[in-house]
Amino acid sequence: MKSIEELIEVKRDGGSHSADELRRLVDAFVSGEMPDYQMAAWLMAAFIRGMSSDETAWLTEAMAHSGRVIDLSGVPGVKVDKHSTGGVGDTTTLVLAPLVASCGVPVAKMSGRGLGFTGGTLDKLESIPGFRVEWDVDAFVKMVQVTGLAVIAQSPDIDPADKKMYALRDVTATVPSVPLIVGSIISKKVAGGADAIVLDVKVGSGAFMKTEADARALAAELARVGQLLGRRVVCILTDMDQPLGRAVGNALEVREAIATLKGEGPADLTELCLVLGAKMLVLGRVAGDEREARDLLMSAIASGRALDTFRAWVASQGGDPAVADDVSLLPAAAHTRVVRAPRTGWVSGFDAEGVGRAAMELGAGRARKEDPIDPGAGLELGVKTGDRVDEGSPLATLFTNDPSRLDEAERRLLDAIHVGDEEIEPPPLFLEA
Amino acid sequence: MKSIEELIEVKRDGGSHSADELRRLVDAFVSGEMPDYQMAAWLMAAFIRGMSSDETAWLTEAMAHSGRVIDLSGVPGVKVDKHSTGGVGDTTTLVLAPLVASCGVPVAKMSGRGLGFTGGTLDKLESIPGFRVEWDVDAFVKMVQVTGLAVIAQSPDIDPADKKMYALRDVTATVPSVPLIVGSIISKKVAGGADAIVLDVKVGSGAFMKTEADARALAAELARVGQLLGRRVVCILTDMDQPLGRAVGNALEVREAIATLKGEGPADLTELCLVLGAKMLVLGRVAGDEREARDLLMSAIASGRALDTFRAWVASQGGDPAVADDVSLLPAAAHTRVVRAPRTGWVSGFDAEGVGRAAMELGAGRARKEDPIDPGAGLELGVKTGDRVDEGSPLATLFTNDPSRLDEAERRLLDAIHVGDEEIEPPPLFLEA
Repeated sequence: MKSIEELIEVKRDGGSHSADELRRLVDAFVSGEMPDYQMAAWLMAAFIRGMSSDETAWLTEAMAHSGRVIDLSGVPGVKVDKHSTGGVGDTTTLVLAPLVASCGVPVAKMSGRGLGFTGGTLDKLESIPGFRVEWDVDAFVKMVQVTGLAVIAQSPDIDPADKKMYALRDVTATVPSVPLIVGSIISKKVAGGADAIVLDVKVGSGAFMKTEADARALAAELARVGQLLGRRVVCILTDMDQPLGRAVGNALEVREAIATLKGEGPADLTELCLVLGAKMLVLGRVAGDEREARDLLMSAIASGRALDTFRAWVASQGGDPAVADDVSLLPAAAHTRVVRAPRTGWVSGFDAEGVGRAAMELGAGRARKEDPIDPGAGLELGVKTGDRVDEGSPLATLFTNDPSRLDEAERRLLDAIHVGDEEIEPPPLFLEA
Repeated sequence: MKSIEELIEVKRDGGSHSADELRRLVDAFVSGEMPDYQMAAWLMAAFIRGMSSDETAWLTEAMAHSGRVIDLSGVPGVKVDKHSTGGVGDTTTLVLAPLVASCGVPVAKMSGRGLGFTGGTLDKLESIPGFRVEWDVDAFVKMVQVTGLAVIAQSPDIDPADKKMYALRDVTATVPSVPLIVGSIISKKVAGGADAIVLDVKVGSGAFMKTEADARALAAELARVGQLLGRRVVCILTDMDQPLGRAVGNALEVREAIATLKGEGPADLTELCLVLGAKMLVLGRVAGDEREARDLLMSAIASGRALDTFRAWVASQGGDPAVADDVSLLPAAAHTRVVRAPRTGWVSGFDAEGVGRAAMELGAGRARKEDPIDPGAGLELGVKTGDRVDEGSPLATLFTNDPSRLDEAERRLLDAIHVGDEEIEPPPLFLEA
């Protein structure tokens, strides 16, 4: 049997690993036999030398089985999970989970606590009074059986390899590697018991993949590795050159999600949820094709069934379901400021990352893992790319409980909204359907 | 200023570092600001992507200045250091240091405690009763001034970057990288105050560089980087497909060194010391050319001056100078065994690493850093490549204080001495003069 050093040498010299070798690397790392510095060397070798789809599938499987694998066989139906590669102001899970569940596809979702410009899905849910995201696996499975959906914090005994590897990649410049990203995403879904996965790969300045070519390569590999592991994986590429929807901030996004479930949400967020939701319904075999699926989703919104499911979900996780009907029950910020256009022209684009940083400045996100989040803080954009603005007309509203941060946030936001002299077409939301 | 992660990204993506960047990496690593796992990722990137000679020189300089730099300006003459890239049974330092010093070239040498099949130079010296290798830097410089030579254990405040980096490379499969090897070797010599360096690059199964091409690449880069740092560096390539001399083991090698200083040593060891010594005398400007230098060295041996200097050296470091005249004062092993040829034929070659492992089995080396060494243990080869042997004729003698190890050591040694049917020429000692 090869030593850990010899396994590192294999990848260092551009060789291929066997399934056994990758299992050994993952197991040795999780058990502590392989220290961080050895894994860091291997990660850099894997980053530079790359991995075949087979190797990535084996790595993924080893990671998925590094901890507990959730058994959802007690829940009837095809379990479809949805994952987004991240972005700014991504409210889709809050809309999609109840929307899809209301159409009969069970949603059993575990979410990580991301360190990002804005809070993650868990932070958004926790801004609903009483809502709890920490549940043990048995309670989680039970909620899915009873309510048809649950979204909880990733249990520490699910895919511990990913947690440990991701923390190390984050500080060793080995994050943006397609095989390592694929392993991280798919292993969590496999460990979470998903039969099929819909992946929303974001492209643009606010996303992890900055170019369309990078995003396409990632999407292709996600699908290929999913298939090798017997999971149906469907990817769409969405534009993140501008934030999705209008709200960026935790309670602000919950409010936007509720509006969307009522059919009153922003057009781009609504459309993305219909497209992703249709794919989930088809994978979940409650619709024959995406057209039929879209009709089902629209009627769930129009009939109020989607919002009913949202209420039941919130109640089952300890939250106050009345927020669905009275958003003033959500935390609000004490201070607001309207940011106005410094000049007349057309909105030519956003630095979505800059928008996220402005929201973080207001208290909506964390700079460090231990930082508190202000659930009421954030911003609401009044404009989208292609909109005409006049000097002094409102671009956005800022929300915070710490007025000392308003000036800096305004400065950042103004830097992140580009106003030009020429009229431009609004960009397409989807790069690939 | 770039963050540590950004510096890792530079090398990860095949870019070049500036002198400032390399200084920052080394300083951050030595201070602890850059943890092992980040340095491991950088080392792997440097291993795979390589480094230019300029980058290697900057790295080397940063490493040399990571701790104390010894000032030998108080010692008159050109300070010439000698380094060997390691091998099995390498007794050259024990011969060369007094031989060269007896001709007027000051030798101020610090040696690391290597973890190898056989003991390092320090272990060999410590097998001389009373000999001490731990001295502070001031005492070291003083001894060089008074006696003309001193060989001590590397002080922990000299080149701490190398110590920390080497320990990490050893466990992250990043040792055999030309720029990293060059940085490690030259930085220690620069920190040790050397004006010029003679490098003996070993090639073959018992050495670090297994092929001649690898050894030539390393030699060329050592010379180039030395020049960039204003140090004259001269390399020779020597064959290590068979052990040098006949003794492998600590006191056994001291005994062999004494014989060589008397002009009674093995031909290959004597010749190597004359060739290396001649280069040192020329670099040290006590001879105009290598021919003149060789004559000086041979007359130092013939006149007894070389052995006189050995006696003065041993005495100055606390050892018993009488060993020069009575080798029975050296530690001896209680048990010996003669290993005999299993068949008739010609010695076609050695697995020098296997010979080293046999000596280690007898107690001459360490498997772990904390293992004790048996100074009397080891082996003496009775044959060299090209020698005719008859079935049952002696191949070697084993020495140990633990007779339970004799069988395993004999088995290993027989595996490592290859006897074939065809007569062969003895191989040349030097691949390049």
